[in-house]
Amino acid sequence: MREHNLAVVLGEVARQQPVSRARVAAATGLTKTTVSALVADLVRERLVVQAEATREEGDRGRPGSGLSLDGDHVAALGCEISVGRLAVSVLDLQLRQRVRLERWADNRRDPATVLGEISEFAAEAVRLAGEQGLWVVGATVAVPALLDRTASRIVVAPNLGWHDVPLDQRWSGVLGAGALPTHVDNEANLAAIGELRLGAGASHESFMLVTGEVGIGAGLVIDSAVHSGASGYAGELGHVVVRPDGDRCGCGARGCLETVAGKESLLRAAGLDPRAGLGPLIEAVGSAEPRALAAVDAAAEALAVALAAAVNIVDPGAIILGGPLAAIGPRLLHTLDRGLTARLRTLRGSTPRVLASALGDDSAVLGGAVAVFDAVVADPRLVMTRSGRHRG
Amino acid sequence: MREHNLAVVLGEVARQQPVSRARVAAATGLTKTTVSALVADLVRERLVVQAEATREEGDRGRPGSGLSLDGDHVAALGCEISVGRLAVSVLDLQLRQRVRLERWADNRRDPATVLGEISEFAAEAVRLAGEQGLWVVGATVAVPALLDRTASRIVVAPNLGWHDVPLDQRWSGVLGAGALPTHVDNEANLAAIGELRLGAGASHESFMLVTGEVGIGAGLVIDSAVHSGASGYAGELGHVVVRPDGDRCGCGARGCLETVAGKESLLRAAGLDPRAGLGPLIEAVGSAEPRALAAVDAAAEALAVALAAAVNIVDPGAIILGGPLAAIGPRLLHTLDRGLTARLRTLRGSTPRVLASALGDDSAVLGGAVAVFDAVVADPRLVMTRSGRHRG
Repeated sequence: MREHNLAVVLGEVARQQPVSRARVAAATGLTKTTVSALVADLVRERLVVQAEATREEGDRGRPGSGLSLDGDHVAALGCEISVGRLAVSVLDLQLRQRVRLERWADNRRDPATVLGEISEFAAEAVRLAGEQGLWVVGATVAVPALLDRTASRIVVAPNLGWHDVPLDQRWSGVLGAGALPTHVDNEANLAAIGELRLGAGASHESFMLVTGEVGIGAGLVIDSAVHSGASGYAGELGHVVVRPDGDRCGCGARGCLETVAGKESLLRAAGLDPRAGLGPLIEAVGSAEPRALAAVDAAAEALAVALAAAVNIVDPGAIILGGPLAAIGPRLLHTLDRGLTARLRTLRGSTPRVLASALGDDSAVLGGAVAVFDAVVADPRLVMTRSGRHRG
Repeated sequence: MREHNLAVVLGEVARQQPVSRARVAAATGLTKTTVSALVADLVRERLVVQAEATREEGDRGRPGSGLSLDGDHVAALGCEISVGRLAVSVLDLQLRQRVRLERWADNRRDPATVLGEISEFAAEAVRLAGEQGLWVVGATVAVPALLDRTASRIVVAPNLGWHDVPLDQRWSGVLGAGALPTHVDNEANLAAIGELRLGAGASHESFMLVTGEVGIGAGLVIDSAVHSGASGYAGELGHVVVRPDGDRCGCGARGCLETVAGKESLLRAAGLDPRAGLGPLIEAVGSAEPRALAAVDAAAEALAVALAAAVNIVDPGAIILGGPLAAIGPRLLHTLDRGLTARLRTLRGSTPRVLASALGDDSAVLGGAVAVFDAVVADPRLVMTRSGRHRG
């Protein structure tokens, strides 16, 4: 019961901060005495801090003291292994980014080596956070992969060429004693959490975030929560078939969206080096190079077919474009919009809004750190107990 | 507060029946005295009945009296207007079917005329229910259509050729005074409710029910509730594009699933009368008539493309096939299964189970009646207040 009430109070502070004890009591149905005792524990464990005095509507007498999450002690780490990059980010409880490291590398290599590198990178971020007085209580690692339900093993990451990789090969010891177990999660799902809490999705209860790099993934948010599917494999937008007689995809099917609009397919179709960045493509589109224009138009048209399928099936309130597809710019967006309108407007009267991601490449690392805090707010004892041990 | 507690008690009885007052009190956190008073009201209003005495584990002394929903008084009406049929069904609170009427008719006519006919049909069902001592407290009308949010107006029913039709043109007076307002809802969504509560979906928290007739729709169930989408237009599986350069569809797009696997398209491709029933097609498949086999295989392959898209995007726990596609039989199911496996197995390791609907053509009418009861259980006062008026 006490565990449950701690979570209730911390959740209320997180949602309403700054907020008085009286208002927390009113919102939760707990007595003021109980709230005060629980708040005292949360303050002692440095999850909550007493901010400037506030006088709230309906409060009489002395102004209530404003409670907020403590942004100066507890922190979380988001990490991302994508095909071409390693990135780590440390957020404090106020969701301010305090450390950010990234480095470009082709990660289509031995998974143990890559996990060793991200572990070193993460350890460096934890050290830099420590210099700011922050204790990193947990980490999430984003991977473009299907994962098992325990979130500790990569089942298959087709675009990395990885199969059946447990996280703990190189990870142990990155976080200090007493930290939460590190989870791995699908890059698109974490990116959707990032957009939901810090980005373009904040004003939508339901949206589909399109992300990815070599592959194309999607994070599906329904009722303000990520929908991960019955097997945990929802959002595989890149494998929606857009050309039934098209090229063979790594997944065994023909004509998947990725075979037309994945970054490498797109660069190849434009006559460019498939392992290069998007710079040359954006330049070629800018100078109206015919092959580049045709490749971008084909990708946008394929994306329209797949997204129209998603709208017909799920009917999200908005579509948020992240990753390289957003970076290509207005030519792609214009063709995409035309393709969606042609397929959706007659029946529906309108098409969902297509927005650009507000976080760009960072949505998954940020979402990974946010996911750690969600676990902490749902059960602060996890951290409090360990925090005792950590200090002991 | 009292209204809320009435709903809590009725909901507990509905879930646990037969159940003792003591157990209801324990499950809801209400006192036994409060539960007894609320139960007395629900019994007086004939929503709950005291069934045979039961002695439950943990109960001491006299056996608790078993409370159940009263299956002998309150009833609900489900109606369906499909392209080729009108159907109505009356369920009692125990979800037993007490009246069922159906009639074949081509409903691609003036909506006012068809609404007049379904109203007469419904009035006949209400009369027959009344002869059994049942009071029909509400009705839902299933239509293969997109509906507005108030559920009282059909925005567009493409396969009926209807646009902007308010329900109340011919409906008023079908139910007696004091009944709930009648709602219209999408046929596939109601069919999904039917399957969830009475059919093949009962053992799945998430599934996609494929239904339809001339068109193809889907009802998407997530976490045991129908997901109707941000605009209420989820589940339009028939308009997922399966052949980007295919035939023009009524919706304005090319190569929608309906243009290949909709009943009329399928019959036409098989060289049969598109307005006939499925009998001749099933017969032609049975005698291995090449055009019929090719048409069924093409439909199954198109369905596999669209359902693989749905699995990639939503990852439902099961797929339930209803409507004509299920009726065609093993040839279609076999090709569909092969098509799903080819597209999904490499990445996922498995494909979701494909089940046949347990309710056949009745899932939508039954789901419509269930939806009325869900509203009653959520707020029994709606019916109780009116029930007083009804009797007055």
